[in-house]
Amino acid sequence: MSHGPDHAGIDVLTLPECLEHLRTESVGRIAFVEAGQPVVLPVNFVYHRDHVVFRTARGDKLEAAWQKAPVAFQIDSFRPVQQKGWSVLVKGTAEVVEEENLIQELSSMPFQTWASSANRPYWVRIRPDEITGRRL
Amino acid sequence: MSHGPDHAGIDVLTLPECLEHLRTESVGRIAFVEAGQPVVLPVNFVYHRDHVVFRTARGDKLEAAWQKAPVAFQIDSFRPVQQKGWSVLVKGTAEVVEEENLIQELSSMPFQTWASSANRPYWVRIRPDEITGRRL
Repeated sequence: MSHGPDHAGIDVLTLPECLEHLRTESVGRIAFVEAGQPVVLPVNFVYHRDHVVFRTARGDKLEAAWQKAPVAFQIDSFRPVQQKGWSVLVKGTAEVVEEENLIQELSSMPFQTWASSANRPYWVRIRPDEITGRRL
Repeated sequence: MSHGPDHAGIDVLTLPECLEHLRTESVGRIAFVEAGQPVVLPVNFVYHRDHVVFRTARGDKLEAAWQKAPVAFQIDSFRPVQQKGWSVLVKGTAEVVEEENLIQELSSMPFQTWASSANRPYWVRIRPDEITGRRL
């Protein structure tokens, strides 16, 4: 995989570096399009079996998943004092997890949700089409 | 402005709380739509004269701004140990700053860009249509 500075002089992360961040972080952001307008919302997530997975309630994020909509998922970390950081962007398609065995597997994992999981009964996964990252 | 728990049991921030976060933070994320696919990229920004403003190079973010595209801008902060955090979402329209006096004003501000500003000669501003926030 190519890496090095992009057009703005920013270093590109390798795929293994991107995957390591996805396996380590627990809060990310999902972006989807709602009536032509992009929306970005934070989610607790796990990277499980090559998918970004999160719980959700009824609402816009679930609606995007029922429609198998194109979504973006983003994680980053910045240290303002050192002016250093990185970000990873996953482009893909959202879908509601409907397989009973996978739901059981996910439900038995030590998954962190800050809101009550009772309020977020659905599992959504993002099937990645492209994973890219940058170092600032 | 109404606030209180939303459908997922998450507390809604007031507009003054959202604006305070916008005035305090220096790194956010812009989301735009590129051929039907949402994209999210981090940017250094300032909240100036009721707009989110950032520098950019030639590329997708600039293209979105030339097209006065609908964009989202998001900031957040999470403390995993305490399981506390907040996020603010700005929905609006991006545009390239072309007014010479505003460019001079922005250029004279102590604006933080981690990449060289020589690589990011354009100013883009987001005109907010809606500002909302949540506390986790």
